Amino acid sequence: MPPESIPFITPDALLDHWQGHRRLTRRVIAAFPDDKLFSFSLGGMRPFGAMAMEMLTMAVPMVQGAISGDWNASTSRDPRPKQDVLRLWDESTGTLNSLWPQIPAQRFRETLTAFGQYPGALHDLILYVIDNEIHHRGQGYVYLRALGIEPPPFYERG
Amino acid sequence: MPPESIPFITPDALLDHWQGHRRLTRRVIAAFPDDKLFSFSLGGMRPFGAMAMEMLTMAVPMVQGAISGDWNASTSRDPRPKQDVLRLWDESTGTLNSLWPQIPAQRFRETLTAFGQYPGALHDLILYVIDNEIHHRGQGYVYLRALGIEPPPFYERG
Repeated sequence: MPPESIPFITPDALLDHWQGHRRLTRRVIAAFPDDKLFSFSLGGMRPFGAMAMEMLTMAVPMVQGAISGDWNASTSRDPRPKQDVLRLWDESTGTLNSLWPQIPAQRFRETLTAFGQYPGALHDLILYVIDNEIHHRGQGYVYLRALGIEPPPFYERG
Repeated sequence: MPPESIPFITPDALLDHWQGHRRLTRRVIAAFPDDKLFSFSLGGMRPFGAMAMEMLTMAVPMVQGAISGDWNASTSRDPRPKQDVLRLWDESTGTLNSLWPQIPAQRFRETLTAFGQYPGALHDLILYVIDNEIHHRGQGYVYLRALGIEPPPFYERG
């Protein structure tokens, strides 16, 4: 088997892994008091609600762009009620599941320019979206702890 | 090609991705003042030095265990001078590079029990180690910001 065909992980398993992270991130969003989601922060950083909206404007748009070449997705990160963020989150979950199988298997290692400005192999671009979610969710954990709220366990993804 | 042979990402590209993260984490460790690395924290959480030591006791030991079945690695996370943490980090970088090609390609999707207690497919166990690094490094960013220190850019991995 040629080296480029030996998988570390398959697309199906990677989607499962990502959706596990997204279930955890949903619990972190839900753990915030409604009045803190877009107001509380530490160290002059953004509130967690803005980070969650950023995640939403990266996940489906990245996959949609990789399939269609259309990168014109909404980038609004404006404050909104927690229930609206959770509703958008759940919609993204279903959309990701339906879009993912439409990515041609060869495309993951092809280079493209995401959002018209970020070049990279598609697998690295998708990992960047996931890693960005983990990075900011970790910051949300600190916010929750500072608010005296126990965050959901990091290792639970079901 | 059977579905289990379609890569989202290959082992070589995944190691590059991981080492990119590890270069960024090294810069975050280096950004802490020596006297804050094992003392400063927020929300009753661990100081960043303890998190960095945890990363060290997960990365090489996970890969070593996956190759050899030997899970008896050091788990010391005791405080030590920043230069010692950075030296251990650099040693791990070289060890990871030399161990990684020794993992048989088939093994990534096989189930094993890491450290005698964490069952999972090897690709998920390795992603857990990387994700744990990203998660805690994100927390280190909050600590640095709270200390008035600008963290290194998240997107720079070189």
